[in-house]
Amino acid sequence: MDGSPPAKTPANTTLPQDAGRHPGRAPADHESRRTLSENDNAVNTSLIRPHTLKGFRDILPAQMMARELLLETARQVYRSYGFSPIETPALEAAEILLGKGGGETEKQLFRFTDQGNRDVAMRFDLTIPFARFSAQHLQEIGIPFRRYHMGTVWRAEKPQKGRYREFMQCDFDTIGTESNLADIETLLVIHDLMAGLGFERFTICVSHRKVLTGLLEQLELADRSQDMLRALDKLGKIGRERVLAEMAGDDEALQTRAGRLLDLAGMEGTPESIFARLEELLAGNETGTDGVARLRELMTAAHTAGIPTERIRLDLSIARGLDYYTGTIYETFLDDLPEIGSVCSGGRYDNLAGLFTSQPLPGVGASLGLDRLLAAMQELDMIPEASTPADVLITVFDTARQGEYLKLGRELRAAGLAAEVFPDGRKLGKQMQYASRRGFRFAVIGGEEEFAAGCWQLKDLAGRTQESIPAGELAGRLQALLSEAGPEESHTPPAG
Amino acid sequence: MDGSPPAKTPANTTLPQDAGRHPGRAPADHESRRTLSENDNAVNTSLIRPHTLKGFRDILPAQMMARELLLETARQVYRSYGFSPIETPALEAAEILLGKGGGETEKQLFRFTDQGNRDVAMRFDLTIPFARFSAQHLQEIGIPFRRYHMGTVWRAEKPQKGRYREFMQCDFDTIGTESNLADIETLLVIHDLMAGLGFERFTICVSHRKVLTGLLEQLELADRSQDMLRALDKLGKIGRERVLAEMAGDDEALQTRAGRLLDLAGMEGTPESIFARLEELLAGNETGTDGVARLRELMTAAHTAGIPTERIRLDLSIARGLDYYTGTIYETFLDDLPEIGSVCSGGRYDNLAGLFTSQPLPGVGASLGLDRLLAAMQELDMIPEASTPADVLITVFDTARQGEYLKLGRELRAAGLAAEVFPDGRKLGKQMQYASRRGFRFAVIGGEEEFAAGCWQLKDLAGRTQESIPAGELAGRLQALLSEAGPEESHTPPAG
Repeated sequence: MDGSPPAKTPANTTLPQDAGRHPGRAPADHESRRTLSENDNAVNTSLIRPHTLKGFRDILPAQMMARELLLETARQVYRSYGFSPIETPALEAAEILLGKGGGETEKQLFRFTDQGNRDVAMRFDLTIPFARFSAQHLQEIGIPFRRYHMGTVWRAEKPQKGRYREFMQCDFDTIGTESNLADIETLLVIHDLMAGLGFERFTICVSHRKVLTGLLEQLELADRSQDMLRALDKLGKIGRERVLAEMAGDDEALQTRAGRLLDLAGMEGTPESIFARLEELLAGNETGTDGVARLRELMTAAHTAGIPTERIRLDLSIARGLDYYTGTIYETFLDDLPEIGSVCSGGRYDNLAGLFTSQPLPGVGASLGLDRLLAAMQELDMIPEASTPADVLITVFDTARQGEYLKLGRELRAAGLAAEVFPDGRKLGKQMQYASRRGFRFAVIGGEEEFAAGCWQLKDLAGRTQESIPAGELAGRLQALLSEAGPEESHTPPAG
Repeated sequence: MDGSPPAKTPANTTLPQDAGRHPGRAPADHESRRTLSENDNAVNTSLIRPHTLKGFRDILPAQMMARELLLETARQVYRSYGFSPIETPALEAAEILLGKGGGETEKQLFRFTDQGNRDVAMRFDLTIPFARFSAQHLQEIGIPFRRYHMGTVWRAEKPQKGRYREFMQCDFDTIGTESNLADIETLLVIHDLMAGLGFERFTICVSHRKVLTGLLEQLELADRSQDMLRALDKLGKIGRERVLAEMAGDDEALQTRAGRLLDLAGMEGTPESIFARLEELLAGNETGTDGVARLRELMTAAHTAGIPTERIRLDLSIARGLDYYTGTIYETFLDDLPEIGSVCSGGRYDNLAGLFTSQPLPGVGASLGLDRLLAAMQELDMIPEASTPADVLITVFDTARQGEYLKLGRELRAAGLAAEVFPDGRKLGKQMQYASRRGFRFAVIGGEEEFAAGCWQLKDLAGRTQESIPAGELAGRLQALLSEAGPEESHTPPAG
């Protein structure tokens, strides 16, 4: 930041960066604001229809508060494990995002030529930016390195229900180590993330690429592994018969081997029994045996570290990501809503940034499906409907006393409460309607009588009760009522 | 969110939104990852040089942690006053961002034509999006309405030192009321924001457009008000002589009146003495008298509400934003770094969204200068250098015991600490170097002896001491040491 005072000449054609409202230095801000106000004189027919682009949406208060809570919880969990936050630009050189390939990526990029004639595009995930970031700052960050990154990404997909062109990803990764310890810890993070978000019934499914590779080799299917795994991936959707047909067609010998693969991938039982069976099958196959050993280690260490065993499940049928996951693979399902799919997925990869640096960067990480999780929480009624983050509304009965109401607000805040002072002196009835509408459970009223008596009226909109509280005791009373209530009940469902 | 399981066919050409790592459904993710790993086979000369675009930058851990802390503090303050968060898209229809005008705004927009042939652009501030948002969702949000919005914006400015093309704004506004109560509260929010961020020596300067309008009218300068105010705005930069020259040139009569304006704008003294003088000067001028009354009310109420009087200053020379601020105006300066300019500015406006709706939306709000504030905090040494958010590093002396180290990590986290388990089993010396480098103050070591004895070695990297702690007491000991230290000392300056 340059230390000189902000330039104040109207001739200054740059917009002030920080003081978003300094039009003396900001012809554009100046213009936008003046334009906004000038229109009062314009004919109404020249109103611009307010709308968002197809595939883009505004997020209103109740939804945004749920989103913020989810993000804060995730942040806390990531930080508690020592992951550090980073940020990367929304806009990157197109060559960086495209890497070597074209294809689907290219079609869905928001890409253009900027003022300097550069071929630029908006990031479509956080992985490529991370690859570039690691290569670019390798000396400074050192390895091993662990980061989390919560950021918006953009994809010009065909808009559909539930699919947006702008959405957030929440990734965490550990790079610069091949150790299974990092893989185990990734599992712990996923677990603590889900638990921290308030879920009790969830299952983290784990698999290992090397186990599948070993099985394919043992079944002499290695030369067809891509086709085999693609077909396997559809198992949950189209069923065994059709998957087998895809894998083997009419070739009976192939059908037998592919059938075995399906049997093994679908193996059930205790982890120990599955491991025993796998070790038998993969005896002599180094890759497969290594995979089994790592999975076994993962389950054992997670148990020692205190993860309830029923929350982890071995599932060898997970076939997703197999083109680049080279080790452990994770998927997370909500027991109460399995149909929405995995809400947190990830795995280990051999080399993050081979496109940008010759330094090998093996790593492991996962991605929290923010929007999917929020949709699930909505469906499971875990999202409060209140559109206010405040605990109590302080009504303004007498504007001549405004300083007093504002003072009360600050006192309540000093006691750790969130309080809104109604920003106006309109009729009490209107203020109470506002309270209802925003989902406030509590409102405070004070008029001449109360000021004279040194007390406040505390109204409970849910219980429809009202009590008189001595001024010094209001904060305590509210705290008590709020902790009885618990977060879901500390706001009343908004009226209308 | 559609409820059907994620499509798993490779033919599915859409990228999965949430599970950033589901290439079975995500040809593009799939491709990006495979591309990333394929390059291992490519010749090294085909490495892509990792770089960010001109005017864009990555944010590394230490900086990002400071940024996150600032944002979290601001969020807390905004919420404690009942402001609700919202989000709007990064991309808007160009017509919405341009409004009626072209000019500077147009030159600095990142604008392009999307796949659907739409004229789109990246938002350059949060005000126009808010105007559109309010108009678009008026029925649902109701008025009065108060929101905060922390978001990234983009401007294709000529990159200079300290100026980026991508930066964050942190705005809060109350709309739908003309009441001075909202203006007073805005002042309180600014105050609690600065205090919450850890500043003790700061000054919030307030002025009022109507006072300036009144003075201009009394001095018969109203017809030249734009020129007068533009020149006034330069007072701090080019000095009185030159400002007078700009205002009046050779015209002596004009010089006299302009000189009076400068005298009045620069008036000093106690608020009461300034108010008294202004009331005298503006007697009979309705606009000016109203402005004075509101300012007086503001100072009184702020005082009643508990704001230290030395933190508020009347400053009539604030001329910024005068093209659209129609009432109270705020600027905030750090006493220890006045040269960086205002770190939080704002004011009242008559109508937010006249471009989009005929419903008048008067309001008041301010913008926190995030990047400027961070730069100030950097300069005032308020930003810790540690690049880890964790309190303690748990070293891995014996990988066979990994479950135990991970378990300790979870125990410490359950006790409210942040703990990182080194993700690898490399030599202890290397792990301690890592600890140093990341800025850890504490490290825990446990080998055979410790496990046998039921204790841990706790190493203090700053004090260069080491003590043996019984296993059950480690969390307590760390908490005690960390609260003694205070946040700045709970990490050691990273080595190297």
